[in-house]
Amino acid sequence: MTTTTTTPGTRNGVDTATLFATLDAVSADRDLAKFQFRARNTWVSGTHNVSTIDGYYGAGQEISRNGGFSFDADHPPVLTGSDHGPTPVEFLLHALAACLTAGLVNIAAARGITLTEVTSTVTGDINLLGILGLDREVRNGCSGIKVTFSIHGDAGAEEIAGLVERSRQRSAVYDLLTNGTDIEIQVNAS
Amino acid sequence: MTTTTTTPGTRNGVDTATLFATLDAVSADRDLAKFQFRARNTWVSGTHNVSTIDGYYGAGQEISRNGGFSFDADHPPVLTGSDHGPTPVEFLLHALAACLTAGLVNIAAARGITLTEVTSTVTGDINLLGILGLDREVRNGCSGIKVTFSIHGDAGAEEIAGLVERSRQRSAVYDLLTNGTDIEIQVNAS
Repeated sequence: MTTTTTTPGTRNGVDTATLFATLDAVSADRDLAKFQFRARNTWVSGTHNVSTIDGYYGAGQEISRNGGFSFDADHPPVLTGSDHGPTPVEFLLHALAACLTAGLVNIAAARGITLTEVTSTVTGDINLLGILGLDREVRNGCSGIKVTFSIHGDAGAEEIAGLVERSRQRSAVYDLLTNGTDIEIQVNAS
Repeated sequence: MTTTTTTPGTRNGVDTATLFATLDAVSADRDLAKFQFRARNTWVSGTHNVSTIDGYYGAGQEISRNGGFSFDADHPPVLTGSDHGPTPVEFLLHALAACLTAGLVNIAAARGITLTEVTSTVTGDINLLGILGLDREVRNGCSGIKVTFSIHGDAGAEEIAGLVERSRQRSAVYDLLTNGTDIEIQVNAS
């Protein structure tokens, strides 16, 4: 249960005045909308590696987080790893849940709806015959991903479902996963 | 610089005997390849939310990690957040780097190539006019993602580039991002 304190201009922990001011500022200077996010990954051993996420470009400037964040990824023991962190696919499921949730909370705030609880479970079914190279007919990625939200707030079920639908329509990660993304890979080897 | 100790059957920290035994076991019983990964997300406040990643189904059984892993996600201050964690898109870039890296290290081990260092930088360019709803012609997700690897090992540049190419061909996250994935969203509201 999340307790939300409503102060003037704030709903669901979102400063709606700042939210609308941000939209106005970007409308006036569309170059402010150009962002570049980054992750830097270092191999540790076997399937264990670690990414650092710090600086990004956005709102017309380079922004540092002073060291940022660090995340281990690994495979589990049944996949020749040691469970030093989640698998890459699990991080992707987390990214999807986080994107949809942040969006719907912002949209609820903009629509004057107070939320008290938002939880979600994301599942990804994957047949490893693909990545193991044992069946060319099986794709490498998930056959499907399912997101199940449980949401409580001061609006009816239909209106709350509308928040999720709007968030889906505006989600960066949902778009990246469903519509395909260009990925370029460069290798410097020695 | 990663120091790799080579023991019989182990290369790059990968137990190649186990790797090949896993392939044999899955070839013999293809149901072992059916996995389901999961993330459970809880909203905290505003754009801040946290995912827990623990149990998964795979290799014919439910497997728990005894509490698993927990990750905060947020938007930065310039996007009405508080930087309690990386953005969802940054987690996705991390997932991509981690997947390609784990794959290429396994493939190198299988091919008898010893690696000494693997680092990568992943960048995602995104124009927020899409998710802000300010331009219908701009997609919500990244216009493109670029991965730049730096790899050192006991093979020539061409052979090392071949490891990355093979990893790309077998990567779950690369497939999920480039080829599009079905996502179903269900909402339970009250």
